[in-house]
Amino acid sequence: MGDFKLTTVEEMEAATNRLLETGAKVGADAWQIRVKNQTPHCKFGEQGICCRICAMGPCRITPKAPRGICGCDAHGIVGRNYLKFTAGGAATHSDHGREICHTLYAADPNGAYKVKDPDKLIRIAKEWGVETEGKDIYDLAHEMAELALMEYGKPFGVQRWLKRAPEHTQKLWHDAEIEPRAIDREVATSLHMTHMGCSSKPEALVRQSLRAGLADGWGGSMCGTEFSDVLFGTPKPIDTEANLGVMNAENVNIVVHGHDPSLSEMVCEYADDPEMIAYAKSMGAKGITVSGVCCTSNEVAMRRGIPMAGNFLQQENVVLTGACEAIVVDVQCIFPALGPLSKCFHTKFITTSPIAQMPDSDYIRFDVGTAAEKAKQIVKTACENFKNRKPELVYIPDMKQKATVGYSLEALVKVLDGVTNSQVDVTGTTKPLLECVTSGVIRGAVAMVGCNNPKVRPDTAHIEMMKKLIANDIVVVASGCSAQAAAKAGLMDKAAKDLCGAGLKRVCELADIPPVLHMGSCVDISRMMILVSELAKDSGLKISQLPVVGCAPEWMSEKAVSIGNYVVATGIDTFLGVDPYVSGSSEMGEWLTNGVRDWVEAAYTVETDIDKLCDKMIERIEEKRTAIGI
Amino acid sequence: MGDFKLTTVEEMEAATNRLLETGAKVGADAWQIRVKNQTPHCKFGEQGICCRICAMGPCRITPKAPRGICGCDAHGIVGRNYLKFTAGGAATHSDHGREICHTLYAADPNGAYKVKDPDKLIRIAKEWGVETEGKDIYDLAHEMAELALMEYGKPFGVQRWLKRAPEHTQKLWHDAEIEPRAIDREVATSLHMTHMGCSSKPEALVRQSLRAGLADGWGGSMCGTEFSDVLFGTPKPIDTEANLGVMNAENVNIVVHGHDPSLSEMVCEYADDPEMIAYAKSMGAKGITVSGVCCTSNEVAMRRGIPMAGNFLQQENVVLTGACEAIVVDVQCIFPALGPLSKCFHTKFITTSPIAQMPDSDYIRFDVGTAAEKAKQIVKTACENFKNRKPELVYIPDMKQKATVGYSLEALVKVLDGVTNSQVDVTGTTKPLLECVTSGVIRGAVAMVGCNNPKVRPDTAHIEMMKKLIANDIVVVASGCSAQAAAKAGLMDKAAKDLCGAGLKRVCELADIPPVLHMGSCVDISRMMILVSELAKDSGLKISQLPVVGCAPEWMSEKAVSIGNYVVATGIDTFLGVDPYVSGSSEMGEWLTNGVRDWVEAAYTVETDIDKLCDKMIERIEEKRTAIGI
Repeated sequence: MGDFKLTTVEEMEAATNRLLETGAKVGADAWQIRVKNQTPHCKFGEQGICCRICAMGPCRITPKAPRGICGCDAHGIVGRNYLKFTAGGAATHSDHGREICHTLYAADPNGAYKVKDPDKLIRIAKEWGVETEGKDIYDLAHEMAELALMEYGKPFGVQRWLKRAPEHTQKLWHDAEIEPRAIDREVATSLHMTHMGCSSKPEALVRQSLRAGLADGWGGSMCGTEFSDVLFGTPKPIDTEANLGVMNAENVNIVVHGHDPSLSEMVCEYADDPEMIAYAKSMGAKGITVSGVCCTSNEVAMRRGIPMAGNFLQQENVVLTGACEAIVVDVQCIFPALGPLSKCFHTKFITTSPIAQMPDSDYIRFDVGTAAEKAKQIVKTACENFKNRKPELVYIPDMKQKATVGYSLEALVKVLDGVTNSQVDVTGTTKPLLECVTSGVIRGAVAMVGCNNPKVRPDTAHIEMMKKLIANDIVVVASGCSAQAAAKAGLMDKAAKDLCGAGLKRVCELADIPPVLHMGSCVDISRMMILVSELAKDSGLKISQLPVVGCAPEWMSEKAVSIGNYVVATGIDTFLGVDPYVSGSSEMGEWLTNGVRDWVEAAYTVETDIDKLCDKMIERIEEKRTAIGI
Repeated sequence: MGDFKLTTVEEMEAATNRLLETGAKVGADAWQIRVKNQTPHCKFGEQGICCRICAMGPCRITPKAPRGICGCDAHGIVGRNYLKFTAGGAATHSDHGREICHTLYAADPNGAYKVKDPDKLIRIAKEWGVETEGKDIYDLAHEMAELALMEYGKPFGVQRWLKRAPEHTQKLWHDAEIEPRAIDREVATSLHMTHMGCSSKPEALVRQSLRAGLADGWGGSMCGTEFSDVLFGTPKPIDTEANLGVMNAENVNIVVHGHDPSLSEMVCEYADDPEMIAYAKSMGAKGITVSGVCCTSNEVAMRRGIPMAGNFLQQENVVLTGACEAIVVDVQCIFPALGPLSKCFHTKFITTSPIAQMPDSDYIRFDVGTAAEKAKQIVKTACENFKNRKPELVYIPDMKQKATVGYSLEALVKVLDGVTNSQVDVTGTTKPLLECVTSGVIRGAVAMVGCNNPKVRPDTAHIEMMKKLIANDIVVVASGCSAQAAAKAGLMDKAAKDLCGAGLKRVCELADIPPVLHMGSCVDISRMMILVSELAKDSGLKISQLPVVGCAPEWMSEKAVSIGNYVVATGIDTFLGVDPYVSGSSEMGEWLTNGVRDWVEAAYTVETDIDKLCDKMIERIEEKRTAIGI
């Protein structure tokens, strides 16, 4: 363990620069170049005070023009833009969840999709009051899938999952009128509210932003997570590796990228198929290596140990290695740039979803019915492309770290049970973790989530903040591209315990865990919501009293704002490193950083100085400790 | 009839200028001033090549920066913005329809909302295959409301109303994969597709725009129209008046504004209440005058003959009269400017909807359960405000025209039956109209719809085009603010037949109709879809073969783009006088003005020169006549 060393951002950047040289040789564009071309950004847009909601405009707020043509002021314009942004994210996450429910509906013991975790399915069925006794597990799956799909469109009532929250939290939601009804309805209502001539009062717009966010986190995302587990297995700790070095120059390299595991699971399945491996060999390769980018990577890493090639701002790098036979994508966060970029190499850029079609791609339409056949076709296409490689362009940076991933809530509880004295204590609770926190061995927890954004030096905020947090005995749970930043750096290697303060180090050793725990993809932030709920119930505290905060230092997507809203609405203070286009309205700023506290006991902090952002989190955690007298 | 004279735009402008003088006296802002402050508009926004979909940006396409940071090009950016715009409109219309369904669900023979057209309810129930025999009409109403609400969120299948279209049209939709599934799902899917890193291919984005539009026109809007008729009565021809002169200086003036008739119907109900009239008198007024603005005005004019104070860009004028005790609004197209403006006068600006809250308003929350009580409170508040009028500020322009409104499809068919030789012909069809068209007595029909937009001299395009069309023997059906422009000018006065060509004039006389037929509010464009479907079925032609086109010369809202998409998707060429922020992409332009024709046999024409726009429509109608040999 003595020779454990993190990979630094500087080393990653050096590798990227080497890849960009290859890119320059073949005339490839790159995000680094495009950022320069797009800077400085439009100040009106950045401040949120540009309105294009109707065709009378666009309107921009200036001292000379303090209102748009309809009379809306800066606060209304910023507020509407913020709600529209949230709705985009809530719809996106939730639609991913919906696809999972449809996949579950099509699950078949003889088909491509099976029920891999029947116990979890039965557990959820019981939670929902569905009779399970004597029922065929596939009948139950279909019944549950239909009920879950109804959560998207039921005419009456609020989300089923809300009941998982502590009663106090449920009451806050009820009193603030932010309990989400049908998921899609909250999206549609958000768009209705932001239509020309509807809402221009920040209070109303912020309230609906929280509600739409909750429809995501406690609705669509939770469906996505829970039923993905049912279909593909609930994650358990598993060893993998991360960073570009996981690609193998001698193998056919298939990179899966996107979010919905329905595609990537099938691709992984067929890449393991002896017939396909033989086919790859017949094409001159030694085998097939599947690696992942973005949340798809998180999904297949957690369940299969598939290595992680990189996160959001590393997606072009996998092509720039010259060793990528196919980058296969489903939905979300996929650079359209991959189209023209792949044309500079032999890489096949394979789009698969009707709702994520891009120019300069090979479109192999993927659906539940033809999943097996299409996945096989994709793997074959990649194998056949091996021979088109240009060896002079191949360079895979020799850079990777070990990572142990897959800390679903179920897995975490099991880890905690392992350190419980089973003769004295009840198992299956979060109490051992609470004891560590109460005693001060661990000071608190931070949920690190979200994307990369060129406005922040990529991965730096994630990695530097995590280092500081664990050094201060604060455990980190991470998801999405933040989790991948951690894995690439080595922070998910159990050896990283050596970077912790004495307390957290002891816990890591005792429980045999890394100090940064991989909880999954972006939809899996719903796992974190259940975790804090369990902590609150097990401790008798309100969620807002727990020394726990959330942080998205490098976020960039609409989904991230939706997440932010539901994390705050769940009672967890949330820290952002990039401003959500709201700086143009003092009223919106006040609502988000303070006003919402009256409803949900938490609020946002926006701080673009990452050092300060981290200090503020630590400070907040200590304040919370003091407040409950621990 | 000899002294019939249209009101000119110049006369309307003179009246407005007089009102603006009052505004200047009290320091009121006005849209005319704000337009000056907001001009010129941002070119990036106008061309649709500004992207704020993620927080890496905003990005703008320039020759130097041909792609956003993610690599998306102008076509993808314009396409995504276009689909987001459409989704906003589809969600808005449909959510209005949903509220109507919820109102129907709460209908009660002893409550505020009753079933006023049970025959229509039974007709729809039979169409939907619901057993009606021996069923209490309210039980049926609740059952149908629940089924309708399921159209918003059902997990499987496509919209029920699609079956109303001719089979050929249904096949086109099926083959193009644009049959809308659950209404809200199409909205959510649209937001998913336009999320960062999903769709950037114009073809896919345009396809979903049509589908989301169809979810509106053949889904949510149709629910809105049909169940509004069930609740409040199916419109029949009724006489009313239009323009500011309908306000009465001696009365308490209540102006209803917005879209959902659930509020305005109740306000009208109580304004007629002898108790309330007595109360108004006790406050020094002679009575109560309710008048309307925007689509709310269309709703209550069609069903109650409530006069129309004005359309979209006239909404500030009603306050500027100094004689408006209360402007009561529900949702959509309401200037936030009414807040500060009303503070310059005694006017109460009363917002009523949780989803349309605005600063500087009195918020009286309205819902189905408390409708009667709240409507009474609103009327009382207005009465009590009469005494606060400042007489020196009161000026109501003496300007109004007669109008006959309320030509629902049912009413039209009845009118046509009236000119049928009932001993020879089948009644209840559109055949008499077809015969007029086939014989050339009427050359064709134009559906004039949509808003005002300061980019076009307000009302001018509506009025001048209608004048030219009817002079060319083209009958006009109108809805929304276009209908109100016509009514204000006098084009819905039956005497306007004198402005028609000889053929149309004869038809107007025979059928006793005005040459511009009022078909309702914006959601009622669904009525026009059923009309063309009936015409196609009765003639054996495809919808696209009928000499019928659609036109929105002064549109401004997201709803208008959603409408445009479903009108085009229904097979009707659609003519726009304002560009839908797509000029920055040649590919998007090509898809919308030509490419979609391969799927749906119709496309857009965008022409900002209104004269040319009108000539192009007449030309298209004549082309269509030639093509079918009439």
